[in-house]
Amino acid sequence: MATYEPVLIAGKWRASRDAQSGFRAFDPATGEEIGPAFPISGAIDVEAALAAASAAASELAAMEPARIAAFLDAYAAAIETDAQALVELAHAETALPREPRLAKVELPRTTNQLRQAAQAVRASSWTQATIDTQAGLRSHFGPLGKPVLVFGPNNFPFAYNAVAGGDFASAIAARNPVVAKAHPLQPATSKRLAELAHRAVLDAGLPAASVQMLYHLDNELGARLAGDARIGAIGFTGSRTGGLALKAAADPSGIPVYAEMSSVNPVFLLPGALAERASELAQEFFASNTMASGQFCTNPGIVIVPHGTDGDAFVAAASASFANAQANVLLSQGVLDHFRQGLAALTGAGAKILAQGKAATEPGYRQAPTLLGVDGKRFVAAPKALQTEVFGPASLIVRADGIAEMIAIAQSFEGNLTGSVYAGKQGSVDDTAAAGVARALRPRVGRLIGNKMPTGVAVSAAMNHGGPYPSTSHSGFTAVGMPAAIRRFAALHCYDNVPAHLLPADLRDANPGGVQRLIDGRWTTDDVTKATSA
Amino acid sequence: MATYEPVLIAGKWRASRDAQSGFRAFDPATGEEIGPAFPISGAIDVEAALAAASAAASELAAMEPARIAAFLDAYAAAIETDAQALVELAHAETALPREPRLAKVELPRTTNQLRQAAQAVRASSWTQATIDTQAGLRSHFGPLGKPVLVFGPNNFPFAYNAVAGGDFASAIAARNPVVAKAHPLQPATSKRLAELAHRAVLDAGLPAASVQMLYHLDNELGARLAGDARIGAIGFTGSRTGGLALKAAADPSGIPVYAEMSSVNPVFLLPGALAERASELAQEFFASNTMASGQFCTNPGIVIVPHGTDGDAFVAAASASFANAQANVLLSQGVLDHFRQGLAALTGAGAKILAQGKAATEPGYRQAPTLLGVDGKRFVAAPKALQTEVFGPASLIVRADGIAEMIAIAQSFEGNLTGSVYAGKQGSVDDTAAAGVARALRPRVGRLIGNKMPTGVAVSAAMNHGGPYPSTSHSGFTAVGMPAAIRRFAALHCYDNVPAHLLPADLRDANPGGVQRLIDGRWTTDDVTKATSA
Repeated sequence: MATYEPVLIAGKWRASRDAQSGFRAFDPATGEEIGPAFPISGAIDVEAALAAASAAASELAAMEPARIAAFLDAYAAAIETDAQALVELAHAETALPREPRLAKVELPRTTNQLRQAAQAVRASSWTQATIDTQAGLRSHFGPLGKPVLVFGPNNFPFAYNAVAGGDFASAIAARNPVVAKAHPLQPATSKRLAELAHRAVLDAGLPAASVQMLYHLDNELGARLAGDARIGAIGFTGSRTGGLALKAAADPSGIPVYAEMSSVNPVFLLPGALAERASELAQEFFASNTMASGQFCTNPGIVIVPHGTDGDAFVAAASASFANAQANVLLSQGVLDHFRQGLAALTGAGAKILAQGKAATEPGYRQAPTLLGVDGKRFVAAPKALQTEVFGPASLIVRADGIAEMIAIAQSFEGNLTGSVYAGKQGSVDDTAAAGVARALRPRVGRLIGNKMPTGVAVSAAMNHGGPYPSTSHSGFTAVGMPAAIRRFAALHCYDNVPAHLLPADLRDANPGGVQRLIDGRWTTDDVTKATSA
Repeated sequence: MATYEPVLIAGKWRASRDAQSGFRAFDPATGEEIGPAFPISGAIDVEAALAAASAAASELAAMEPARIAAFLDAYAAAIETDAQALVELAHAETALPREPRLAKVELPRTTNQLRQAAQAVRASSWTQATIDTQAGLRSHFGPLGKPVLVFGPNNFPFAYNAVAGGDFASAIAARNPVVAKAHPLQPATSKRLAELAHRAVLDAGLPAASVQMLYHLDNELGARLAGDARIGAIGFTGSRTGGLALKAAADPSGIPVYAEMSSVNPVFLLPGALAERASELAQEFFASNTMASGQFCTNPGIVIVPHGTDGDAFVAAASASFANAQANVLLSQGVLDHFRQGLAALTGAGAKILAQGKAATEPGYRQAPTLLGVDGKRFVAAPKALQTEVFGPASLIVRADGIAEMIAIAQSFEGNLTGSVYAGKQGSVDDTAAAGVARALRPRVGRLIGNKMPTGVAVSAAMNHGGPYPSTSHSGFTAVGMPAAIRRFAALHCYDNVPAHLLPADLRDANPGGVQRLIDGRWTTDDVTKATSA
């Protein structure tokens, strides 16, 4: 029997008990297998992880928040100390550039996220403590009391990693154990992160099963796990097919799934903006579309450009950039296959290829950046097929016949993470048009963007990395930004006439930590005093 | 062809276009049909309502919040003016007492809820405006941009009515049109409320289709409606069977269902409390269990009582009260049938009937209050069957062998709306036990209650009328309490680098309305100033 790398179950690194087979990572730049063999876990591993997580859940829920914060900070520091090795592993498994992407952007973003989660825990900002002194009612958000299952995506080996990313940090911040399902394209990166997390768990004195990790499951077992009533919630980032399959498995058990799935992120270029800076906008668009081989959830997949000379200039400049581009390395053969299927779906629905970069001559999962075009009337007539997401360096330009058609196009979009509107900077040339397009986009996107491309998601309390279905599974939540992202993994807990000694710290009268609380309708850091209670 | 009462569709009271049949209300006190015939709508009515609601949605979303608030206040005032007639109709259709219940408790609660929603709209308290001046990001909760479908329950003709209750007020406050599906036991009450709502809609200048109402649909059509992608969200209060059927219909379309379903609301009586006041507790319990014929979501359906003399005294006193009770009038033949099936399920699982009130001699849907008992060990061995909800005046006493078994019983509960713990008032006699039971209950209930019965749900910002699945469909939301209840029907909207003229009022720099906003991590009513932006 083959020997596989160990899994992290029940507080120990140990051999998979029932791996039927294994797998290895691939170097996307060569297409060759790299690194050791990792197990595809079976039902025994899954059951062991679930049982251990369930046992850890009530213990973790009862922990002092300060201890959770200490874990998150220590883990962030450990990732920084180990940065060089992590970057090498992630680069080998994803072909994403070491610098700036992995070392200077994504890794710092990941540690920043963990530290923001720690800060939200220390400040109790995620709990939204609410006190009604007249009614004797106090409520806040608390842990689910059950483990959270996190599925990481293929495109962010650190910042969305199931054992280090935003879902992980959010779930732990709310004092829920995490069962991480690593992305099978990044087993070595995930293992190294899990090792750091596990050591930090033990050092911080959290229950040893607070963090567990499996590398791979078959789809049937994954669905069974997702529907297990012992699971409190699920975080998922990935394809629409994958997200909807998980949701279908979890829904009958009443388990909320926070799936961030697919988005084409429409960008509307208004006439004034094009008149001012068509060629500059083309460069901005090309850079955003091809950065990281276009493998971002917020990649600008559709650009709406009015007919006319300025629009033609934009398309000509963008086409030239795409035509001169080198082939990009994609993450996997699967991503490459889907990319080509997506192009075929678009051309099958009437889109034409406007420009395509140089064909790849080297090995690996390489794809030439591709620009497509279609007429606005055809788009409005077949919006479903023409909204097919092509994950990778591709975009569809929709030529519109004036503002009314731009608005009609905006109204034909399904739910998206983002929608951008570029308007002229001088005077109010595009104001009416911008208002019309923005109004049409508003209910269809999570983040409405002014004069910027959608790539680049700041980790901020005011961010929304979410959007209406089917871009995500729930339009009320964000996957990025503390403290809001934590609330996905929280339950609303009310205390009615409960004696002081049974109240959690952030709901007691005294407020030595200066927690911001909504007391009798007013946000304040004051204590609850006899005066306010009277 | 029969003539039916009109439905409210697309801003007009008009005849159902495709009623295949009709129905009438029943007087629960006699079992006889009363009032006019109402239509069971078909697909044509449903399609017309959906189309009109979808058209109204973007118009309503763009309305000034002040206009929404004015509507909610005017509607509340109209209900008060019409109170006498409404109380008569509701009394006839439910047999709930005119006073205090309908006139003095439920109707004022309903208008209070509408006014609290208006206040939340005026203060923008539900939008949670969040501003990051460094990142140029501003976010808040906004309308769904799609209609909300509301299903009212049988047990609150006003406060949870689909066209007047908390779900209605919440959905409208978030500027979403409502398609109300009245409860078929209360068609005349619902019609009269809808008439008042419709007039208030027109007076306030809201889109005429902002409020629509159908009386009845068959289950298949109801499921088709619930799964229609034009629906933004669903509010439901009622049986677990009904709620889960709606959820199953809506889930594949990604439509969030906020279903408040079933709950047995366990009450734990600790030894110190029993020693102090066993007989007083028995009266408190009996009153809570039989009030309104026990037809409350928060009815105390299971009481956990330790073995021993004090526990025996409680059971003896409670049994005497039940044995002497008159038969209660239930809401319908269906409620009566389910009640009896519930009793049979409990006795089938090993519970014994301890006491039962006088059998009914009069007509109507009458049922004697019933007290059952079972041993703690049997409960822990068969917790599922013994948690069968018996909607009506019944409760199951579980006798426990000490605190450890009380905790084991607490751990065997599924998700509930509430859990109560009664402890001795003198000294700290029950402190350790209370902490143990509370810790076991915490992840299993929405509202943890100290020394009180669960009935009585204050409309407060700190209330949670919600709980873990399957008591509701999502543990992060409450059905009662402004502004939190509004957030069920809201989408998170981010504005990234968006020019000032495209921002909603509560996200602009100036804050003339004194909205409480989270600016750079601090809740404040300040303007955003150059200083904070620097």
